[in-house]
Amino acid sequence: MNVTTKPAAVTTGPIAGSRKVWSSPPGHPDMAVPFREIDLHPSANEPPLRLYDTSGPYTDPNLPIDLEAGLPQPRAPWLARRGLATIAAREVKPEDNGFVPADKLVPACPAPRAILAAADGQLVTQYEFARAGIITEEMIYVAHRENLGRAEALASAEATIADGESFGAEIPAFVTPEFVRREIAAGRAIIPANVNHPELEPVIIGRNFLVKINANIGNSAVTSSAAEEVEKLVWAIRWGGDTVMDLSTGRNIHNIRSWIMRNAPVPIGTVPIYQALEKVGGNPDLLTWEVFRDTLIEQAEQGVDYFTIHAGVRLAHVPLTARRTTGIVSRGGSIMARWCLAHHKESFLFENFAEICDIMRKYDVSFSLGDGLRPGSNADANDAAQFAELETLGELTKIAWAKGCQVMIEGPGHVPMHKIKINMEKQLRECGEAPFYTLGPLTTDIAPGYDHITSAIGAAMIGWFGTAMLCYVTPKEHLGLPNRDDVKTGVITYRIAAHAADLAKGHPAARLRDDAISRARFEFRWEDQFNLGLDPDTARQFHDETLPKEAHKVAHFCSMCGPKFCSMKISHDIRADTERMAGMEAKKTEFQAAGSQIYLPAKE
Amino acid sequence: MNVTTKPAAVTTGPIAGSRKVWSSPPGHPDMAVPFREIDLHPSANEPPLRLYDTSGPYTDPNLPIDLEAGLPQPRAPWLARRGLATIAAREVKPEDNGFVPADKLVPACPAPRAILAAADGQLVTQYEFARAGIITEEMIYVAHRENLGRAEALASAEATIADGESFGAEIPAFVTPEFVRREIAAGRAIIPANVNHPELEPVIIGRNFLVKINANIGNSAVTSSAAEEVEKLVWAIRWGGDTVMDLSTGRNIHNIRSWIMRNAPVPIGTVPIYQALEKVGGNPDLLTWEVFRDTLIEQAEQGVDYFTIHAGVRLAHVPLTARRTTGIVSRGGSIMARWCLAHHKESFLFENFAEICDIMRKYDVSFSLGDGLRPGSNADANDAAQFAELETLGELTKIAWAKGCQVMIEGPGHVPMHKIKINMEKQLRECGEAPFYTLGPLTTDIAPGYDHITSAIGAAMIGWFGTAMLCYVTPKEHLGLPNRDDVKTGVITYRIAAHAADLAKGHPAARLRDDAISRARFEFRWEDQFNLGLDPDTARQFHDETLPKEAHKVAHFCSMCGPKFCSMKISHDIRADTERMAGMEAKKTEFQAAGSQIYLPAKE
Repeated sequence: MNVTTKPAAVTTGPIAGSRKVWSSPPGHPDMAVPFREIDLHPSANEPPLRLYDTSGPYTDPNLPIDLEAGLPQPRAPWLARRGLATIAAREVKPEDNGFVPADKLVPACPAPRAILAAADGQLVTQYEFARAGIITEEMIYVAHRENLGRAEALASAEATIADGESFGAEIPAFVTPEFVRREIAAGRAIIPANVNHPELEPVIIGRNFLVKINANIGNSAVTSSAAEEVEKLVWAIRWGGDTVMDLSTGRNIHNIRSWIMRNAPVPIGTVPIYQALEKVGGNPDLLTWEVFRDTLIEQAEQGVDYFTIHAGVRLAHVPLTARRTTGIVSRGGSIMARWCLAHHKESFLFENFAEICDIMRKYDVSFSLGDGLRPGSNADANDAAQFAELETLGELTKIAWAKGCQVMIEGPGHVPMHKIKINMEKQLRECGEAPFYTLGPLTTDIAPGYDHITSAIGAAMIGWFGTAMLCYVTPKEHLGLPNRDDVKTGVITYRIAAHAADLAKGHPAARLRDDAISRARFEFRWEDQFNLGLDPDTARQFHDETLPKEAHKVAHFCSMCGPKFCSMKISHDIRADTERMAGMEAKKTEFQAAGSQIYLPAKE
Repeated sequence: MNVTTKPAAVTTGPIAGSRKVWSSPPGHPDMAVPFREIDLHPSANEPPLRLYDTSGPYTDPNLPIDLEAGLPQPRAPWLARRGLATIAAREVKPEDNGFVPADKLVPACPAPRAILAAADGQLVTQYEFARAGIITEEMIYVAHRENLGRAEALASAEATIADGESFGAEIPAFVTPEFVRREIAAGRAIIPANVNHPELEPVIIGRNFLVKINANIGNSAVTSSAAEEVEKLVWAIRWGGDTVMDLSTGRNIHNIRSWIMRNAPVPIGTVPIYQALEKVGGNPDLLTWEVFRDTLIEQAEQGVDYFTIHAGVRLAHVPLTARRTTGIVSRGGSIMARWCLAHHKESFLFENFAEICDIMRKYDVSFSLGDGLRPGSNADANDAAQFAELETLGELTKIAWAKGCQVMIEGPGHVPMHKIKINMEKQLRECGEAPFYTLGPLTTDIAPGYDHITSAIGAAMIGWFGTAMLCYVTPKEHLGLPNRDDVKTGVITYRIAAHAADLAKGHPAARLRDDAISRARFEFRWEDQFNLGLDPDTARQFHDETLPKEAHKVAHFCSMCGPKFCSMKISHDIRADTERMAGMEAKKTEFQAAGSQIYLPAKE
């Protein structure tokens, strides 16, 4: 199935029924943008359907996977041309790995990488390039990636295919690199792409592009190997995670992160305050700006693409949460609130925000301005604390832009349906249309064990209204740590939400996949139906529970109705009849025109 | 756990963590309306939370369950007072059980029941009583049932608890029997309640009441026992099915239906055309009005509470489907379309609609006017065929009302988010605000295996917009027959959608449960959190996968963050600190008022 120089230790090989393909943007033969294609049954008489692909080299059987060497580095030549300085690496300190004893130390990934950083005044971030009118390779890459299917859609006779309601989003018929540049320059989109992450396959996040999803991973209490942690990443992107946040804590996190970064084709996000807290023994009161600052540099040098920074949790906001039903539910938010209160001082993140920007700019680490005061229950949705923080995030956005940084904004949380839209509208207004990145929101609190579903409802809606990226929620939310199945369920559920949003926004090509699967259904192409779905394996397994035989994969019926009752089959008869009658009608007209009266009008 | 005269063969006993309670409406001590109550941990200092309960006597350990005798008959004394005639039962014919050979015949349920029917001109339907200004026992019962929690909500200081957007629904602060009567008289709500279903615990379906959900069941190819079929019903209502549709076909359906009816505390719906088709050997062309008519009487006498009647599929509508991506996907719709086309005649359902009304009125079988032309793909949503049928359903609604019948209207299907609202608006307009009963809708076609989720998004939204009942979709939709787990997943998923809709509509008491579970979360009452959820068993199991020890059920942390990191715990510290400071502030004011300068203003 796959060619590896050593046992891969991670899941490789194509997703059932599809082929990895690489395609070059016009005029850029050296650039290879990943897609996957599904070949349909010959009876369909349709070209292969091309899909967006987040899974990286792992699904290409022709690419060797060697975790120690790391992934191929598509960005290396682009970065090389930018004249960035190679700097001396920050020395790894015992606290970076949680003071792990030597015998328990997981070694760092040995893949050799130079560490890059920008000098003062040197263009480095995608935002800076965009503002300077320069189109980067990353912009060309994402334009090609986003254009998926648009050519076919535009060629299609069905001009009404994109009939959505976009709520002010301006989704172009075709994405040009210049359109990408303008969106980034306006702050409406970001390409999280640390200069120290050459392995990245760039992704654009903004409301005029395809809605993206993020999956969270984190280390287990007992980590037996770095490969196990990389596998979590590989598994999450296999099913459609556009970005992955590594929320690991505790021992070995620096070294495990090195394995993740070197083997991540997607943008990786982190919450640096988690590691900073570990470094001071887990007591928020002991956090200092210096420890935090050092952690930013540590992670930026490793290549992390975006940082959640909870700088909007200001001292004055904390008392607003005291009477909440569920207080502060964000880990980062509660850590900072605790610190502010313990010291009765303004947040060191807020106070040092300009310097945080300077550090992040140097490597082009994007901001994900954290919503530390997001509501943890429907009761607390849209309250004073939440909106006070959002207003602060708006102020910080402007500072970060002035410093040259890329910015997105995190959002709630738990919000009943009727309070979702105002979140989007307020975010756009306060934060100058910077991309919104929300967790769900969960539309009810009463379904522990099913919060992927309570939140998929809210996620689809807020995605429709304009949220650029949806952070997944797994069935284990509120209850425990997600296992492999939970991660897959969470990712698939959020792909559903994101796609439902793309359809409703009127993305010009989103419906191509729906239409292809619907035709497959109508034509009893069962294998095509499985393969065109988000999870071919589960679809096939469900079908085979009732009709396991291979012959049933081409049967013109299914187990729901059985052969006698099939409504699809009857529809085919109807179509044939209608066409026959239309033919007769045409003939009749023809004959009548010729003066014949063979065809009499049917009795009324 | 349960007292039964013989082995129950079905699932009995309370849902984990709750008690069945029966409560009488004011002034009606003989009437017992079911609820369940959850006792919270003493530390909560909260009264038990009372919940709506669909599960019937099966969850009451004090009630014997004997499938052969059937359930208790709460409606028997009410019906006895109405002076309905006891009629001779229609003789069971071989075709009623699909011509099953004698050795394969499942015996009918032996529970003895007289068969009731109304004479011409005698009031019998809830609609007729309501129009005549008469409040029935069923109306009193559902008013009490719907009032769940409203007294507490009204007593609560938080007047803003119901802050939804109702889109024109007028949900009262408190439901009176007179309000119920008026809603039914206006055609805005129905209580499906066949006079031959004395075992029924009445349920009201209308947009000014709690959103209801329906679960479908059907026989397997090989049915080993009637108890197995009853168990499907019991299982579906245990998790929250408000009504159940029996979509069985083939052999023994008449006799199996007798077991289901005599043991069903919820309204049962069927699609009589399915059985009629069986009677003519499965060939739609051979269907006749006489066979269909006889089937209506057969099922009405058995006590079926509502019939899906696809009378809106008119001959003229059929050609409108010929160019669809997925044709006609409704079984009933395709059968009728096929018939119309084969005979090139108007539908016999449409032609004989007045007589259908007369039959259904006699037993108070409610109409569920079927959407035989609902879209089976996003591509076909809101097309001419769908809307032409909806307009016909509007005409038929007025005829059925004039005949004294209760009516609800079935709706789609597959609809992208931006096309959902117009469905609701058009249905209200065309059908005079008769209750809408939709399947999903599925908001995208690309997730076979996950269509409970693609459709929960649409169901929550259309429920919010005004749909009165949501027909569930299981993970097996499009792929196979749902098993026990699929049914449970479908029901829980739709309870989520319905509750999210109730919250968003501004139901005055819906949030009580959310708030209770949120407080339990904040106070680390793990058992309360499990028990207050829709599925306590799964919540507990998920929690225990990571933290299995009993001690962890009272632990002030969970596996997501671990003891050091817990944001909820930090919030408690913040609350304590804020209160301490507020106390200091009060003291300061006190001292300052007294001329003291001990408390200096904090430095800005």
